[in-house]
Amino acid sequence: MLFEKVTSDILAHNSYVIGAGGEMAVIDPRRDCRVYTEIAESREMKITRIFETHKNEDYVIGSRDLARLTGAEILHGAREAFGFGIPVREEESFRFGPLELEVLETPGHTIESISLLLRDRSVSDDPLMIFTGDALFAGDVGRTDLAGADRRREMSDMLYTSLHEKILSLPDGVIVSPAHGAGSVCGGDISDREYTTIGYEKATTPLLSMGREEFVEYKMNEKLYEPPYFAMMRMLNREGPPLIYNLPHLQAYSAREIHSFLDVKVQIVDIRSPTSFAGGHIPKTLNIWRNGLPLFMGYYLNYEDPIVLVDDFNLDLDSVRRHFIRLGYDNISGYLGEGFPAWYEQGERVRMTCTWSPPDLAEHLGDPSIYILDTRDINNREEIGHIPGSHHIYVGHIEEHLAEVPEDKQIVVHCDSGFKGSIAASILERHGFTNVTNLLGGTIGWEAANYPLVKEEEEEKPLHAAPAM
Amino acid sequence: MLFEKVTSDILAHNSYVIGAGGEMAVIDPRRDCRVYTEIAESREMKITRIFETHKNEDYVIGSRDLARLTGAEILHGAREAFGFGIPVREEESFRFGPLELEVLETPGHTIESISLLLRDRSVSDDPLMIFTGDALFAGDVGRTDLAGADRRREMSDMLYTSLHEKILSLPDGVIVSPAHGAGSVCGGDISDREYTTIGYEKATTPLLSMGREEFVEYKMNEKLYEPPYFAMMRMLNREGPPLIYNLPHLQAYSAREIHSFLDVKVQIVDIRSPTSFAGGHIPKTLNIWRNGLPLFMGYYLNYEDPIVLVDDFNLDLDSVRRHFIRLGYDNISGYLGEGFPAWYEQGERVRMTCTWSPPDLAEHLGDPSIYILDTRDINNREEIGHIPGSHHIYVGHIEEHLAEVPEDKQIVVHCDSGFKGSIAASILERHGFTNVTNLLGGTIGWEAANYPLVKEEEEEKPLHAAPAM
Amino acid sequence: MLFEKVTSDILAHNSYVIGAGGEMAVIDPRRDCRVYTEIAESREMKITRIFETHKNEDYVIGSRDLARLTGAEILHGAREAFGFGIPVREEESFRFGPLELEVLETPGHTIESISLLLRDRSVSDDPLMIFTGDALFAGDVGRTDLAGADRRREMSDMLYTSLHEKILSLPDGVIVSPAHGAGSVCGGDISDREYTTIGYEKATTPLLSMGREEFVEYKMNEKLYEPPYFAMMRMLNREGPPLIYNLPHLQAYSAREIHSFLDVKVQIVDIRSPTSFAGGHIPKTLNIWRNGLPLFMGYYLNYEDPIVLVDDFNLDLDSVRRHFIRLGYDNISGYLGEGFPAWYEQGERVRMTCTWSPPDLAEHLGDPSIYILDTRDINNREEIGHIPGSHHIYVGHIEEHLAEVPEDKQIVVHCDSGFKGSIAASILERHGFTNVTNLLGGTIGWEAANYPLVKEEEEEKPLHAAPAM
Amino acid sequence: MLFEKVTSDILAHNSYVIGAGGEMAVIDPRRDCRVYTEIAESREMKITRIFETHKNEDYVIGSRDLARLTGAEILHGAREAFGFGIPVREEESFRFGPLELEVLETPGHTIESISLLLRDRSVSDDPLMIFTGDALFAGDVGRTDLAGADRRREMSDMLYTSLHEKILSLPDGVIVSPAHGAGSVCGGDISDREYTTIGYEKATTPLLSMGREEFVEYKMNEKLYEPPYFAMMRMLNREGPPLIYNLPHLQAYSAREIHSFLDVKVQIVDIRSPTSFAGGHIPKTLNIWRNGLPLFMGYYLNYEDPIVLVDDFNLDLDSVRRHFIRLGYDNISGYLGEGFPAWYEQGERVRMTCTWSPPDLAEHLGDPSIYILDTRDINNREEIGHIPGSHHIYVGHIEEHLAEVPEDKQIVVHCDSGFKGSIAASILERHGFTNVTNLLGGTIGWEAANYPLVKEEEEEKPLHAAPAM
Repeated sequence: MLFEKVTSDILAHNSYVIGAGGEMAVIDPRRDCRVYTEIAESREMKITRIFETHKNEDYVIGSRDLARLTGAEILHGAREAFGFGIPVREEESFRFGPLELEVLETPGHTIESISLLLRDRSVSDDPLMIFTGDALFAGDVGRTDLAGADRRREMSDMLYTSLHEKILSLPDGVIVSPAHGAGSVCGGDISDREYTTIGYEKATTPLLSMGREEFVEYKMNEKLYEPPYFAMMRMLNREGPPLIYNLPHLQAYSAREIHSFLDVKVQIVDIRSPTSFAGGHIPKTLNIWRNGLPLFMGYYLNYEDPIVLVDDFNLDLDSVRRHFIRLGYDNISGYLGEGFPAWYEQGERVRMTCTWSPPDLAEHLGDPSIYILDTRDINNREEIGHIPGSHHIYVGHIEEHLAEVPEDKQIVVHCDSGFKGSIAASILERHGFTNVTNLLGGTIGWEAANYPLVKEEEEEKPLHAAPAM
Repeated sequence: MLFEKVTSDILAHNSYVIGAGGEMAVIDPRRDCRVYTEIAESREMKITRIFETHKNEDYVIGSRDLARLTGAEILHGAREAFGFGIPVREEESFRFGPLELEVLETPGHTIESISLLLRDRSVSDDPLMIFTGDALFAGDVGRTDLAGADRRREMSDMLYTSLHEKILSLPDGVIVSPAHGAGSVCGGDISDREYTTIGYEKATTPLLSMGREEFVEYKMNEKLYEPPYFAMMRMLNREGPPLIYNLPHLQAYSAREIHSFLDVKVQIVDIRSPTSFAGGHIPKTLNIWRNGLPLFMGYYLNYEDPIVLVDDFNLDLDSVRRHFIRLGYDNISGYLGEGFPAWYEQGERVRMTCTWSPPDLAEHLGDPSIYILDTRDINNREEIGHIPGSHHIYVGHIEEHLAEVPEDKQIVVHCDSGFKGSIAASILERHGFTNVTNLLGGTIGWEAANYPLVKEEEEEKPLHAAPAM
Repeated sequence: MLFEKVTSDILAHNSYVIGAGGEMAVIDPRRDCRVYTEIAESREMKITRIFETHKNEDYVIGSRDLARLTGAEILHGAREAFGFGIPVREEESFRFGPLELEVLETPGHTIESISLLLRDRSVSDDPLMIFTGDALFAGDVGRTDLAGADRRREMSDMLYTSLHEKILSLPDGVIVSPAHGAGSVCGGDISDREYTTIGYEKATTPLLSMGREEFVEYKMNEKLYEPPYFAMMRMLNREGPPLIYNLPHLQAYSAREIHSFLDVKVQIVDIRSPTSFAGGHIPKTLNIWRNGLPLFMGYYLNYEDPIVLVDDFNLDLDSVRRHFIRLGYDNISGYLGEGFPAWYEQGERVRMTCTWSPPDLAEHLGDPSIYILDTRDINNREEIGHIPGSHHIYVGHIEEHLAEVPEDKQIVVHCDSGFKGSIAASILERHGFTNVTNLLGGTIGWEAANYPLVKEEEEEKPLHAAPAM
Repeated sequence: MLFEKVTSDILAHNSYVIGAGGEMAVIDPRRDCRVYTEIAESREMKITRIFETHKNEDYVIGSRDLARLTGAEILHGAREAFGFGIPVREEESFRFGPLELEVLETPGHTIESISLLLRDRSVSDDPLMIFTGDALFAGDVGRTDLAGADRRREMSDMLYTSLHEKILSLPDGVIVSPAHGAGSVCGGDISDREYTTIGYEKATTPLLSMGREEFVEYKMNEKLYEPPYFAMMRMLNREGPPLIYNLPHLQAYSAREIHSFLDVKVQIVDIRSPTSFAGGHIPKTLNIWRNGLPLFMGYYLNYEDPIVLVDDFNLDLDSVRRHFIRLGYDNISGYLGEGFPAWYEQGERVRMTCTWSPPDLAEHLGDPSIYILDTRDINNREEIGHIPGSHHIYVGHIEEHLAEVPEDKQIVVHCDSGFKGSIAASILERHGFTNVTNLLGGTIGWEAANYPLVKEEEEEKPLHAAPAM
């Protein structure tokens, strides 16, 4: 029996490979799908079936590319119309040698969500494992807000039914293999267990012990953000995304070419660290550190204009390229050859951003010329507390709330660490704010240095939580 | 300055990468062309130009695939019409930072052949290197027979002019970078020097000291084979070959499926060693050892019916896959999963072939029930000599000459080592010969064991040299 | 939380990596241990602890090499004296950030065996996973015969206690991570589940439902083989094996050198397939196909004389090299450069072995000039049945039982597939048997071709099961 | 014939592999020498000889490690006593199949320097290639200053003899393979030709057309720097360097551990870009960007105290590790796990350095509160010119010249680009200078922005050229 988990880093998306008897199935393949054909080749198996547990919102599915390469059939839940593949329904089952995958319809996160129950019939009729898609994660359950505010109650109720009647009623020893791990935007608070079981989840996840009503209320009040690119993903994944064949080649551009891009519709993304961006950058460019790309580029980048990267040393651009492709940004085009130094070796203007460490801010706390801007997500702010006197705009929503930021003060942006603060700083600078400081360390560093965080101050109730999430 | 040679193993095809100032040119790219974009990415250069020194006959060019990936322009000689790219003429030159490539028209191998002369203008106006395509190799010159027997004299004469007026008149210190190395079918006897110079070639290659007449006569009398697939290559490379995007996925087939292929038009190729084929094989399958594929599959395989491989352990099928793609066999489909043992674990009939070592044959020499069949190329036979009493059919021409092989004798096939003998044995068995023996070691082993080879016996003058080559 | 399983292929040995909070532990590391430092580097963790669940018999442990590289401490069970490391006892526990590993003493397979219980204290006090070493596998339990026949009952009883009082009493949802997977010689019949749970094992493994007496009787009657190299492994792993620093370089030897080795104490191992060996080999050499090395070389090779390999194409010798190092064969020296063809290109004598497919044997069944020799393990023979009239000597014991094999008959050796039959054939030929045939496909092929197997014939009761196992 | 160049990046050290007939020689192997055994394995050759063209000063030789792995003999020039290997003298020659390497004694760079002349005796008695060590490079010749000021004239004279009587008298078509390429500190101005010839060098390198006297005077006046670590290299390479077996494992340290290192003798090296260092760094740490390590760490680091790295994202630490090992820094120990952000997430003080782009400096030119410090090498300053009013201390000599830097001014350091300026800035900060600015772009950016450089101003004659170079 072949069982392998293939993870898309940072996105925290899990796909699974399961095989026996020379045949292999792939569950929720990612778009850069050569990884599955390589497994098939090394294990000398034929990929015959591809399952989609649901139409994902956070990445472009790889089913169509993988089907083109292998001739496998694509199978997905029947309760929504797809532009490709074969719909499957409750209790349908599929054999691979002694293995069997049985379909359980488990709507709630989406209407057509399915789970897949694995049995090894050569051993027993007892189930061994369940692939739960976005219904059940380790320590959390799927979001129910994405179908819209008006359907949120209905979806939450449906999810409760799916969980309790289909999944949690399985034996405690069944291994749970969900579609996402810790860090994913598809759950509010997924744990970082690599593997878990029905028994462990029932024993340790309080959410699963709630009654129906309590559960639905909880889900109704959850505050979650929806990056704008989700809409594009939903559309592509329902219609059938464009084939990519392979990862694109990234072109090396000269500093001169990059300069010329400043005047046209090219999206320049500086993928360096907050300190490197602060120490000098091309004026008005967006900074998203390389590992922040999967989580944040979907807020700022469009799908039309070419995307060009700026790095220090252009190391491991292969991973970076994959982040773009997985989110459907086929307009990724290239990067500044020889790195950011090529820019300043051309004698170009370079812009610095000020950085502070927590002691620097502590010295200025209460100073009226300072405007502290907290860009964390609202849950983090509410649970952990905030720096006294700070204002809140979520990093993904800054462009919509620029009017709230005073133009005549020193803006000290922060997040929990310093990375998202640098995104925010770069956006403020693009929009003309000239006195922006990024707090290195954010609230984590602030607490580590023993400065206080406060909660629920009257004057500072959160202004910008995404209302319908 | 970036200079790199990228070789297609066994095919002994050389392509070159040359770059400076952020720009990179590729000369004669192979079809699995990601290797060039990887160099460009690691060196942070933009591929802007692709040169074809001539329309190759022995492999599918990668220019169009590479141009699609990079946006580079394709440049080739102007004396023949191509279905793509831009024609270039004598003395046109192209700059890459301080580097310059100048076009020399050097017809002879083909009519539109060009050479490219490299200068580093930052250093000197003297040339540093010349890319000679198929005009000049290390120790040999290009074939002049491929344009047909009627044009052979004309092409040979043209080549003489190209060599002596364009290439050999360069300074002795110019480095020569040809399109092929030792082992290529594009030259009769290319040496295995990795790098060479005008001076070294002039001093050491007798062919280059000949006068025009002697040279043309020599070229008229050269005996060379032309594999049937050359015609396909010529056509594709002139029209513009189909894009491949990426290497195909090889499907693992079960023994049961392979069995079913025996009745339909599937081309099963056993890529194991001569001993492994001899020790047991699927009846009537063709044996070409893995490293013999680039040189011999073009004699036996068509471009329509799916090709399926049989190996012992399915190791490094990636290299094998590349061999097929480079020769345009996009109909490569898969392989027997779990290797040849999967075949016999199904209880299928297995066929053995007898093998002999030289002492075995020596004991039977002169035995009238033995028919010794020499399958080497005719030059090897004539230069080295042959086993007394042996008959000759070149391995690539056996199917056309089956009538000459007696059905009632033990056929002892041999080549110089044992590999091509096994190809021949497999072909004879496919055509109903039941008593075939492969001589392991061939003439090399025969000589190593101190048995005599003879030359020019009256009764054995070579019957099957390709007349027009 | 980092959790990764690192498997030594074929040996089916599992090691585990577990980490959090910047620290990483390795459980039962293999000897080629760079794999763990690479994980540590990619995850930016420090390896601080190495656990040995027991002193392994089937491979050389990597603890000392890994400790030298990392400075980590080695921890093992306290009930036996080791020449290195720190003894740990019941209920001792070790923290890695929020994770905790607790020691359970679980003797039975060996006296000092421990299991390790994993909790994530940030989530719950409930255990999440247990590392069971050789106490509990998927579908099987550890061997109890290796401490000797006289202690077998005692060890079996102890294992029952360990299983039922320590392991099976854990919650059903605890994930079980054993030290071996399917194919290992450390269990009789381990299943090929990649992951399993307490609940699944209790529900599906009959052995775990037995009462104490029934269980002990079962374990007393189990027939298992003990390869001779186990004694060396036990000694090394208790005293502390020699450090290897890195994988050895394999020297390419010429055919001439290999020839000279025939007269001295060099162990030549032909790692080709059964068909390739049959089609021609160096006389009197041992054939063990490459993937059979970890399981069978320990029966035939000594630890002093240099070991030299013969392959067809010398592909992926890196894996082969690892097999030798993992079993402590630091006397692996090199291989025949250019492969077996280099042998016959020297004009050397080549020996063939006859191969039959099942229909060939079926035609000769009952022929008195045929002696059918079944070399499978005795359990396979007894459970599946045997070819009528066949005699039995286990492949690992042939050299001790040569006297039973008739010298004047055609010996048809077989196993279940053809690989071990080829080992046996090569051993018989070394000892002067000249008329040996290997049955390709063995009993699997025999059955697939619909020929009958029989059971319990009076005249054929198993003669050579390993008595004390 | 196998010919391969293996380059140590940045160090620009070339080693060569040459082989035929199953045997392989390595010339000037680097210390991380697995690369050669991998070539040997892939080409199925035995490494039998290792040549040292001279005792290198800029890296630790790999001969002893490679000899341990392969059993090859080490051969080096006879005119100096080594602690290992076999001395060879003029005209000794060594065969590899048809290839032959002949020793030419070519002293001048060092006393025992040899060159190796390659012939392919199967082709001709003419030489094909020469390995010139540090005697002749592309566009330059070896340094003659390293034996000390008192022997400089003698060595220069000797080099002239070696070049003109041994090397340049070879045929123009001989390919030249030197021990270093462009960027090496072993030549003043080596060109970046990948391959060159006697003819091309004679035609294009003016140095080679000089008469003896002119040549010696030129060499006497050459200004070159000698990093302090050269002395260690010379000693190790003469005595025989310690074996490394393999690359060391780099330990991930926590921010807390790094903090504790500040008080003890640990050498913390920040390998980030100038901008990232400027945007925030651990106070008083040394900044050498990752690719500057091979050229500059030898000025600042000792061989005793542990070395610990700080990076942004800990990407490709493997290359970084190799840099240290190649220069003998076996005291490389580890790095800050999770990168520099781990530092500030601990709430630690972070220090910024100011950066300017050329327009910023231009606006302040002439301002008396500014002290412009040029840290380029003196040749660059003299040839290209300098920023008006700037003072000069070579980056490698700053610690010895701190007294010259005014404490009460804003120090604007620069080099040609910005990297070495950041080294200098970090050193100034360590020594208490609090107002340091690094000019991004340096003189290259300055010129690109069309600001003037001046030459030979009276008040600014170079003060700190290394006296004896």
